[in-house]
Amino acid sequence: MAGLPSFDRMWDELAPIGRRAGTGGYQRFAWTRTDSDLREWFAAQAAARGLSLVLDRAGNQWAWWGEPSPRQRGLAIGSHLDSVPDGGAFDGPLGVVSAFAAVDALRQQDFRPGRPIGIVNFTDEEGARFGIACAGSRLITGALAPDRARALLDAEGTSLAAAMRGAGLDPNAIGPDPETLDRIDGFVELHVEQGRGLVDLDSPVAVGSSIWPHGRWRIELPGEANHAGTTRLADRRDPMLAYARLILAAREAAERRDSVATMGKVSVLPNGVNAIPSQVTAWLDARGPDADQVQAVVAELRELAAAAGGSLRQESWTDDTGFDAALGRRIGAVLPGAPVLSTGAGHDAGILANAGIPSAMLFVRNPTGISHSPAEHAEHADCHAGVRALTAVVADLAG
Amino acid sequence: MAGLPSFDRMWDELAPIGRRAGTGGYQRFAWTRTDSDLREWFAAQAAARGLSLVLDRAGNQWAWWGEPSPRQRGLAIGSHLDSVPDGGAFDGPLGVVSAFAAVDALRQQDFRPGRPIGIVNFTDEEGARFGIACAGSRLITGALAPDRARALLDAEGTSLAAAMRGAGLDPNAIGPDPETLDRIDGFVELHVEQGRGLVDLDSPVAVGSSIWPHGRWRIELPGEANHAGTTRLADRRDPMLAYARLILAAREAAERRDSVATMGKVSVLPNGVNAIPSQVTAWLDARGPDADQVQAVVAELRELAAAAGGSLRQESWTDDTGFDAALGRRIGAVLPGAPVLSTGAGHDAGILANAGIPSAMLFVRNPTGISHSPAEHAEHADCHAGVRALTAVVADLAG
Repeated sequence: MAGLPSFDRMWDELAPIGRRAGTGGYQRFAWTRTDSDLREWFAAQAAARGLSLVLDRAGNQWAWWGEPSPRQRGLAIGSHLDSVPDGGAFDGPLGVVSAFAAVDALRQQDFRPGRPIGIVNFTDEEGARFGIACAGSRLITGALAPDRARALLDAEGTSLAAAMRGAGLDPNAIGPDPETLDRIDGFVELHVEQGRGLVDLDSPVAVGSSIWPHGRWRIELPGEANHAGTTRLADRRDPMLAYARLILAAREAAERRDSVATMGKVSVLPNGVNAIPSQVTAWLDARGPDADQVQAVVAELRELAAAAGGSLRQESWTDDTGFDAALGRRIGAVLPGAPVLSTGAGHDAGILANAGIPSAMLFVRNPTGISHSPAEHAEHADCHAGVRALTAVVADLAG
Repeated sequence: MAGLPSFDRMWDELAPIGRRAGTGGYQRFAWTRTDSDLREWFAAQAAARGLSLVLDRAGNQWAWWGEPSPRQRGLAIGSHLDSVPDGGAFDGPLGVVSAFAAVDALRQQDFRPGRPIGIVNFTDEEGARFGIACAGSRLITGALAPDRARALLDAEGTSLAAAMRGAGLDPNAIGPDPETLDRIDGFVELHVEQGRGLVDLDSPVAVGSSIWPHGRWRIELPGEANHAGTTRLADRRDPMLAYARLILAAREAAERRDSVATMGKVSVLPNGVNAIPSQVTAWLDARGPDADQVQAVVAELRELAAAAGGSLRQESWTDDTGFDAALGRRIGAVLPGAPVLSTGAGHDAGILANAGIPSAMLFVRNPTGISHSPAEHAEHADCHAGVRALTAVVADLAG
């Protein structure tokens, strides 16, 4: 099967891009030099296969086999190439590389597409730089307002608009992109599993059923910078104490409400050993099978933040996302025996599904379940099984 | 009095160097470009007054009026020019600028020094970059081992040795410097007060009596990076929880033990919104009037860190520092009515005192008590009162 050697070759090409020497993890943030290298790689893959490269208004890359139009819409496959800080190799790239490999396999089989097939690389899926996950797909579907997006700042104070310009893209072009969405009537995203569901089920590939409701919130806790040696405890306004109480309250509330809550990112000003902080900014990630319970966790923390003189504001929220039932059944028929799994992770497929595009996901087994970490892994044989599954699904859906 | 206009002029010259646009605070870290600008300024002040500039083995700058020797030792005055992150204008520079202004005032009075007078700019007093406060004075007194110092890393992973080389200094030269210490038999450091003692006492200038025992500790809390959405709470190894418990325990233990404890600096890996941290590194600053009580606070936190699979290691410790009693009495006689204050802040004067150099401090009133913050302040009239007091003290001690 031609897709398998080409998968291996592409995987090796991507391996060094954005890899950190110390940890072996990846630092692939949107609109950076590393991202440009990844986008060039994507464009080269498209060119090598004679696929036509189209950028949408958000700069997401689409490589088309055939010419999609509102009269003959295409099937999109793919995922994203960016990473979380010190992330793994698989989250994102596995879906893009598998998509190219599936096209290679179909061509070797002399497959004639009954309709156009597009491979997509969504920009800034992780939101690692500007805090909003799935920025590329949110922008084109209108789930993220362009003015708000342009004003987002990264840790160095660079705006998203400036970052886009620095990468040669036009930030004034971003916004809802119905033309792009009109070109597709289905999206299948293959992704490494980010839990141990397939390990327990002893299967290499699963079909996704739904994405938990999930969101991100930004917490601002103000204080008063002062000297760590000379300021009496009673005179302090130290926001680190409120931050500590929020961390513990988030875990406790999530346990009580059958959800998960994570405080994984923090920024402290001035962040000096001998200075009481003037400001702690922290982020909450909360998810769960039940949207009301997740929102109740957030409400508890919002109250705590307010009681400390601070604030908790929603940065993003995606409600319970059920993938297209008919599409899921059809994929299930192509992959008999593949288990069906829901996931707590957000994906571009969820954003497109919520925008009315019939969407589906395939998950590839992750032996440890670890993701967003250099230890993220999928066995070579399971990656190949993923390519085979995706090839079969595309052959059926675009045959 | 000639020292007052020259004080104002020098103050204005220093004001823009290392100032941050957003906050108005200062970012003056050792061996940076900003630090080079400050050192050039110091050298120019020395040259303009015909003082001879000497660098010691740690690169601390000394501007000598007269030629000190072991047979005729000099009186040193001065402080430091570096800052904490987003620090104030006064902590450090007030002492250096007042020292030059005092020399100007003495010269206008046709004062003839009975012995050499040296103005010193100690390097890296705040330890903002490499974590060890008073690095310059610790190095020359042997309180900081040169091998340990060279290997210290800043937040970007640059070693202190590389930073010194980048600033044109020789890191192989650092180490105990008895020749430099043999040139002085007294040190008077003028400093902005970092509390509200003088406000309560309604006085512009105080004489320092002692420095509380104080230290810094580095806390490492290991975890396991994983996905914030797909990892069950029970499966997590999230070091942020242990960090939160340490923050609250530090405050509680300090209250109970009549000490102060601050967790003002933290570094989280990978610091992603949707990633459980793999590592939290935090720093503890603890001080108090009683060394045993401070060490008991630290011992409680060390146990907590160990229980979480982590560690707490001492980065620096300075025992209770009483300034020279005879020198203090003599200064008290020159400044009748000036109150006598102890402080929770560490200073180069404390390091020299612990190395056997008779040392003293003058404190200038701080109307809010706030320090290590852009809001740090001293009234213009009080700064001038500080110059007058320092001038009188030098006239007496080096007359």
